[in-house]
Amino acid sequence: MTSHEFYMDLAIQNAKATKGQTDPNPLVGSVIVNDNRIVGIGTHLKAGEPHAEIHALRMAKEQAKGGTIYVTLEPCSHHGRTGPCAEAIVEAGLKKVVIATLDPNPIVAGNGVKILENAGIEVEVGIGEEESKHMNEVFNKFIVEKKPFVTMKAGTTLDGKVATRTRNSKWITSEESRLDVHQLRSENMAILVGINTVIEDDPSLTSRIPNGRNPIRVVLDSKLRIPLDAKVVTDQEAETWIFTSQQHDSDKKRALVDAGVSVFVTNRASTVDPNEVVTILGEKLVSSVFIEGGGNIHASFLENKLVDKVVLYFAPKLIGGKDAPTFLEGTGFELMKEAVELRDTDIVRIGSDFKFIGYPIYKLDTE
Amino acid sequence: MTSHEFYMDLAIQNAKATKGQTDPNPLVGSVIVNDNRIVGIGTHLKAGEPHAEIHALRMAKEQAKGGTIYVTLEPCSHHGRTGPCAEAIVEAGLKKVVIATLDPNPIVAGNGVKILENAGIEVEVGIGEEESKHMNEVFNKFIVEKKPFVTMKAGTTLDGKVATRTRNSKWITSEESRLDVHQLRSENMAILVGINTVIEDDPSLTSRIPNGRNPIRVVLDSKLRIPLDAKVVTDQEAETWIFTSQQHDSDKKRALVDAGVSVFVTNRASTVDPNEVVTILGEKLVSSVFIEGGGNIHASFLENKLVDKVVLYFAPKLIGGKDAPTFLEGTGFELMKEAVELRDTDIVRIGSDFKFIGYPIYKLDTE
Repeated sequence: MTSHEFYMDLAIQNAKATKGQTDPNPLVGSVIVNDNRIVGIGTHLKAGEPHAEIHALRMAKEQAKGGTIYVTLEPCSHHGRTGPCAEAIVEAGLKKVVIATLDPNPIVAGNGVKILENAGIEVEVGIGEEESKHMNEVFNKFIVEKKPFVTMKAGTTLDGKVATRTRNSKWITSEESRLDVHQLRSENMAILVGINTVIEDDPSLTSRIPNGRNPIRVVLDSKLRIPLDAKVVTDQEAETWIFTSQQHDSDKKRALVDAGVSVFVTNRASTVDPNEVVTILGEKLVSSVFIEGGGNIHASFLENKLVDKVVLYFAPKLIGGKDAPTFLEGTGFELMKEAVELRDTDIVRIGSDFKFIGYPIYKLDTE
Repeated sequence: MTSHEFYMDLAIQNAKATKGQTDPNPLVGSVIVNDNRIVGIGTHLKAGEPHAEIHALRMAKEQAKGGTIYVTLEPCSHHGRTGPCAEAIVEAGLKKVVIATLDPNPIVAGNGVKILENAGIEVEVGIGEEESKHMNEVFNKFIVEKKPFVTMKAGTTLDGKVATRTRNSKWITSEESRLDVHQLRSENMAILVGINTVIEDDPSLTSRIPNGRNPIRVVLDSKLRIPLDAKVVTDQEAETWIFTSQQHDSDKKRALVDAGVSVFVTNRASTVDPNEVVTILGEKLVSSVFIEGGGNIHASFLENKLVDKVVLYFAPKLIGGKDAPTFLEGTGFELMKEAVELRDTDIVRIGSDFKFIGYPIYKLDTE
């Protein structure tokens, strides 16, 4: 590991530590080094507060002069709530700037670098790039597309089942996996489920980890079949947003609104278009959605090419049964060549289970 | 690694190299060391030929005297085709015997050790025991139970599917996985499939690896629906054994026998009991069976607690579809607590896929 990599790695670790608290802003870390000594460390903590570079410059004070600043994301060039960081770096008299990744927004990417270079500062881009991009996968999508980064999650047996034929499902995965799910919930701005999951399991859909943030609970319920005594309606643990169709019962809608639930009436007559849901969530600045089933909801989002990431917890168990539900139902693809392949796959042990991560590759419609 | 472990590891590696060629005998390796020099190496090559210790003693000749012999399995005490190895070791004047595992047959386990100890030879048991037991998992079951070691194999998408809803299945897994399957076929004495697999895919069920042994092809076909032009009937690449029920068509049976197929008529009226199949295969000295589907066959063997090992190739793909077949169909278990758990699980990358291995734990019926 070169010293460049060492300092950038420190900046990345600090940035990662704030996962879940910077939304809708990205995770960013910064380290200032002068004469082989760390003189400043900064991390962006919360939207509206100073950027990572500003915190690092404040810590370094006059020791920043002539030094090198490491920052995981290209310093901003726009006059926002905290002023352009690129100009602050110029004013502080830094000699060199090492950047992991350029701004993900192609319209402004490189503008920060330009300000720095025009001021005669040496700029190096790309150290730690892959890890830095990966830790901001949510932000990188949202800032460009204005739509949430969608993670599909399932806890499954090895044979793809999420319950027995009698819909018994407690428990498939290990305690360690379930705790990990609560962590992922707290890192997402919304959890999304289908109405059948609410009717069958009556889940509270909260994050049961210490200091865990409870995401918005999103339920797709085309006919407003949700029971008024469902936990997500009554427990007040987090916001609940229900997406319904034109054919909903307006009395039921009123009762839900009276109970504090937000009801979104979407355009289709009797179904809810997942594309419309994702667009509305984006407009409401929901940058990340965690989809927890059931199998028809998963299939509907996947077939509409809306799933960005797949997280599966495989319990080393076998259930069997042609009528036992799998985590991916719906109609399904007709031919193997249509199957969605996943890239950048990884699998690790978690308790007695295996946790799989992968990213769908969507073929163009013309292919 | 101690020197004991070093020499035993060499014996184990030599034993493993003969995988698939010693049936129905176990894999056994042996190393003789005298004065810190290897003076003999032996491996059991083929049933009917000398045991590993005899080969090692022949290589060592008079240098065996006063030395230490490492052997992966307890030297035999019975007068078989090659005489008791324990006595040969005594006669050769060895000073010490290091054994990985005792004889798996509880009736004779320890008898070889007794002969050695009675002759004043120092005996140590247990070095490399786990690996030695693992490499003979097939033999260890067969010698005790007289029934084949059954491996259930499937190539599946992440959502447990083995084909699309239209039964399109070419290809789910990567070339590397399919090559690995051919390797496993060659290591088993029989491949077993259900009649639907033969009718739908017309597979040849041979091992397409260089010098690969073709296992016996076993088809469960209760009504003798197999087409007379199926590859397993016509291609003469390997033996084909069909298990049918009392309600079979006797003309069809005659035609199959004329084509060189062996037909076993089992006891049940209209179905084939997998327990009976396994018992008959054991009587015919078939020590290992590789079950390659379909999902109903898998379920039937698993529900009858006949599966000893599960090998799954997970392709990083998603198909979806509630009517797409999974690798474990049948009725399935009713409750999660009945689900079959797997122990000693492992998962490794193979090409773009993941290969999972695990061993079912069957609960007692009284639990």
